[in-house]
Amino acid sequence: MSSHHIVRDDQEPALIIANGEACSMELLNQLLEWSPLVIVLDSAMDRVSPLGIKVDVLLGDFDRGFDPVIHKDYQYPLEIVHTPDQEKTDLEKAFDYLVERKIPAVNVVWATGKRADHTLANVTSIVRFNHKIKIVILDDYSKIFRLPEKFEKWYTKDSIISLMPVGKVGGISSQNLLYELNDDELTLGYRIGSSNAVREDGLVTITYKTGDLLMMECHD
Amino acid sequence: MSSHHIVRDDQEPALIIANGEACSMELLNQLLEWSPLVIVLDSAMDRVSPLGIKVDVLLGDFDRGFDPVIHKDYQYPLEIVHTPDQEKTDLEKAFDYLVERKIPAVNVVWATGKRADHTLANVTSIVRFNHKIKIVILDDYSKIFRLPEKFEKWYTKDSIISLMPVGKVGGISSQNLLYELNDDELTLGYRIGSSNAVREDGLVTITYKTGDLLMMECHD
Repeated sequence: MSSHHIVRDDQEPALIIANGEACSMELLNQLLEWSPLVIVLDSAMDRVSPLGIKVDVLLGDFDRGFDPVIHKDYQYPLEIVHTPDQEKTDLEKAFDYLVERKIPAVNVVWATGKRADHTLANVTSIVRFNHKIKIVILDDYSKIFRLPEKFEKWYTKDSIISLMPVGKVGGISSQNLLYELNDDELTLGYRIGSSNAVREDGLVTITYKTGDLLMMECHD
Repeated sequence: MSSHHIVRDDQEPALIIANGEACSMELLNQLLEWSPLVIVLDSAMDRVSPLGIKVDVLLGDFDRGFDPVIHKDYQYPLEIVHTPDQEKTDLEKAFDYLVERKIPAVNVVWATGKRADHTLANVTSIVRFNHKIKIVILDDYSKIFRLPEKFEKWYTKDSIISLMPVGKVGGISSQNLLYELNDDELTLGYRIGSSNAVREDGLVTITYKTGDLLMMECHD
């Protein structure tokens, strides 16, 4: 059986390769290890193609002179999904596609860097898909996901944790952070929770009541 | 008179070099052309130093093993501003410093890229300084500033314009955009105005009533 014909368990997270800055091959290969369903966004395909990755779905509006069809043969089978809707970003359309296919989780790479408007749109758009699909955005410095309203995870001491509100987030409390939150409010642009850290090896608990709070696990 | 002793007109925009990804030397040199007051944030100094740029102010909490004093001699005169406040980012402290010195405008480079929490914090923090100092963040793909509530500027047809709400922004109207806004509301994470474009060569007008709206002029 060739690698083109692995029977996939669609319970594994899919992988979206977006159109921002490329991540390290080390990170990309880690994510590819489980043969996920691989979706590439639009003209990013021209940069993915030389990497020898088997792509399953090529999705985009293809409105800037990019020809998806030239990739069909060497990537066979390749599903080409044409999404001309100008109201949504390509990344949002890819999330919609995965929700439609009932795939429960997805990792996203190349979604940050380069154009700042794309970075900001991509990173914040994930909140809208809460309860529909579990999304994690990764780059060489950051792991980003929407926190559920009650979150618990084991971290080592001094791990950097940034709590970034997408708009206004209320009733935030934490346990085991260097700067604890106690029924606090965070507002993007005014008061955020960046560069906090884990106080001691052990469980970190974060709860909040209103809004959308992003977790960013970052390192230099 | 050596270049170290230029008498500066503090009405020119200052330049902050932050601690994200380096921009092109072309962009950096353009911004340095007018001999602005140059402020470098914390350990970014180790990356700025080999570039042979005269730095005027080195500002940061210096809490991660970085020694600012080794830069004093070859950068003489160099003002070292120690800002240990953990409630603010280094970039916010640099804005505070410039406001204190009554400097009316500043360009910021190296504020995006690398850690996503820093990028998001830096790009959105500028809204808090509205009316205090005019801030423009630049990188190789983007020029970012807070829109005043009534904004008019001449653009060429097809220029990409992204209108990014920091939180919720109400009563937005536009003239001369491809996708016009008409007393619309934008909310980060839910409905944004990314990748709009200028319809015809000429004045673009954007007005809004509530909230903080960022302009991102971006190109691939």
